[in-house]
Amino acid sequence: MPSYYTSAPGKVILFGEHAVVYGKVATAGSLGLRSYTLVQTRTDGTIEANLPDVQLVRTWKSSDIPRQARWEGYPFPPAAMNTDLLDHLAQFVDLAAHRNQSQAAIALLYLHAYLATDDTATQGFDLSVRSNLPVGAGLGSSASYSVCLATALLKMNGHLSSLSTGAEQRELVNQWAFQAEKVIHGNPSGIDNTVSTLGGAVMFKKGEKIEPLPGFQSLRFLLTNTRVPRSTQVQVANVRKLQEKFPSVVNPMLDAIQEISISCKELFGQDDLERAQLLSRFGELVDVNHGLLAALGVSHPALEKVREISSKMGLKSKLTGAGGGGCALTLIRDDVTPETVAAVKQLLEAEGFQCLETQVGGPGAGVQTLEAPKTIAEFLTLDLTSLEVTPNWDYMV
Amino acid sequence: MPSYYTSAPGKVILFGEHAVVYGKVATAGSLGLRSYTLVQTRTDGTIEANLPDVQLVRTWKSSDIPRQARWEGYPFPPAAMNTDLLDHLAQFVDLAAHRNQSQAAIALLYLHAYLATDDTATQGFDLSVRSNLPVGAGLGSSASYSVCLATALLKMNGHLSSLSTGAEQRELVNQWAFQAEKVIHGNPSGIDNTVSTLGGAVMFKKGEKIEPLPGFQSLRFLLTNTRVPRSTQVQVANVRKLQEKFPSVVNPMLDAIQEISISCKELFGQDDLERAQLLSRFGELVDVNHGLLAALGVSHPALEKVREISSKMGLKSKLTGAGGGGCALTLIRDDVTPETVAAVKQLLEAEGFQCLETQVGGPGAGVQTLEAPKTIAEFLTLDLTSLEVTPNWDYMV
Repeated sequence: MPSYYTSAPGKVILFGEHAVVYGKVATAGSLGLRSYTLVQTRTDGTIEANLPDVQLVRTWKSSDIPRQARWEGYPFPPAAMNTDLLDHLAQFVDLAAHRNQSQAAIALLYLHAYLATDDTATQGFDLSVRSNLPVGAGLGSSASYSVCLATALLKMNGHLSSLSTGAEQRELVNQWAFQAEKVIHGNPSGIDNTVSTLGGAVMFKKGEKIEPLPGFQSLRFLLTNTRVPRSTQVQVANVRKLQEKFPSVVNPMLDAIQEISISCKELFGQDDLERAQLLSRFGELVDVNHGLLAALGVSHPALEKVREISSKMGLKSKLTGAGGGGCALTLIRDDVTPETVAAVKQLLEAEGFQCLETQVGGPGAGVQTLEAPKTIAEFLTLDLTSLEVTPNWDYMV
Repeated sequence: MPSYYTSAPGKVILFGEHAVVYGKVATAGSLGLRSYTLVQTRTDGTIEANLPDVQLVRTWKSSDIPRQARWEGYPFPPAAMNTDLLDHLAQFVDLAAHRNQSQAAIALLYLHAYLATDDTATQGFDLSVRSNLPVGAGLGSSASYSVCLATALLKMNGHLSSLSTGAEQRELVNQWAFQAEKVIHGNPSGIDNTVSTLGGAVMFKKGEKIEPLPGFQSLRFLLTNTRVPRSTQVQVANVRKLQEKFPSVVNPMLDAIQEISISCKELFGQDDLERAQLLSRFGELVDVNHGLLAALGVSHPALEKVREISSKMGLKSKLTGAGGGGCALTLIRDDVTPETVAAVKQLLEAEGFQCLETQVGGPGAGVQTLEAPKTIAEFLTLDLTSLEVTPNWDYMV
């Protein structure tokens, strides 16, 4: 009864939100905040899902799930989504439930339908997911679920050897995670699952291949969730309106934002740049990018408050994601004392914001083969920080 | 004993500060806040200056001031400054006094040396200046003094007929005002005196002719002096540092700022645009320009506070001038009620800021021939608002 942990990070946009909509290059990085999965085969032919973060506890009879025949390109997924299968799977979930629940469950069954071997299809399995990523905060929680899920089912069904060995394994995880993202989101960009799979940082541009950012060094951030609800659609539409009214003004601003990503890449490509200097320059790019986003009208008083508080302590912040609320990133340079970080956190929390210290640029998808099975209850009550320091992870790095 | 009032406005940069340093187009407008001069010939051969705003009260013997012979291009000033005369005049002022005082006095004597007729040189004159412009706040108080002075001396010495008739009179005032500005500042750009002379709004670009902005309509603003001391040099140097570090990022930002001025010109050139629509678009440009300046790092917490307070009341603000402190402009659309303006003022004043309601785009230099002489004391104690509504001004418009 093989048992595995899988793990995958969330993501943040470092530079280039909004500009990316206009075909400009943007930069994203993997977050230290991760999702974790326990997956293990059973003997009773049952599939059991425990996803406490979306309040989903559900079992299915494995024999009810239609398995897909071998296809061209196996074990990589077929290019087109199987809409017949999606329609069929809808009957196994409670569509009246919160969309997060039903989509997470369908994604699980969809990947199972393709990836199950005769053994796992007969025996069934249980899969439990926990996360220290807030849901719906623009931090890629669904992608980290999708990558955990893909890694878990690929591993359990014998499709993965070692994650740290080579591009093909990464590509396999990433492609299946992208399938899961498509089930969940309809038309995802593929950025979130790529960052979550690969870890580190990536540069991306609409319609072009997502490339790892070479030489990227892990950075510390304070991630502040303003808890101001945000709508990506509304913010994107507002920028579009401004761009249509004043294209000659807005277009060079979008170019400037793209050049921030390119300058960031250049910074990490400079071998002779000292770490302190790198962080200082990176902080300046953070400042300028936020300013440009504010100039595009996508900031919010709560985000400006984060800037004001952190700036008083000498720290650079920017909104991350669509803006209009949501999260801000504050760069913690190596020379910033724990006392300063604590003081900033205290001031931000006094505003009602939620603060998390985290790394950006850590490892991507990970898998660990457990020596003995865990009970689901053990996993669900585990202190998640203990998983972060568990050795024996096989990570994409 | 002819007596005249002269009057000239201050200026604000509407769009394009900092970008103008890089050869980009910027836009400035004349302020409703003005300086006023009373000038009248005497009979005792004394020149008396009363400039309470710079604490200058001084008399000279007119016969001590070396008069300049007629020169090529008379009565327009010679192209080069007369440095011998400047050196000579230095003995007549207290150089240990505040620089504002000595430079204002030298400018007065310098223009007198060129413009005096035999009559005024023999009789002497007194010249008193008052202003409702704060000194040293980047609002062109020295240019409004220079234009008042040039208009006063040109008029008293018979070089001006009517200000409202034609380009040559404007040019004459503007060129002499520019001479006074050179005495005061050394190497002024010529923008402040041009705006103050012509009134309305102008577009300008380093090394090119300053052009009136056609179709400009007068706009109401709340002008807030944060009272945070600022250094233009420091702010200009900071932007330069950023531009040198990240030219590919900063250059398109400067382009975007230039395009704001061009978009502003287009707005005022659109005959079919309703006033309400014009003001709404203008406000959006105000917002974007401030954002870009903040992104260049030249805002200040006090300026952001002005933005925060006015934005809560639905009003658009931007810093004006070099930033890092100094003044902010808040656009008062026609539909904004006096109660809203009062409420915003109250909130801003509670922060320790000084607020002035003013127009941008009003008349330039003005002159009025008085029917009877005034005493200096009368002028110095006059309620300045009474001068604003005095009829019979002959204005540059």
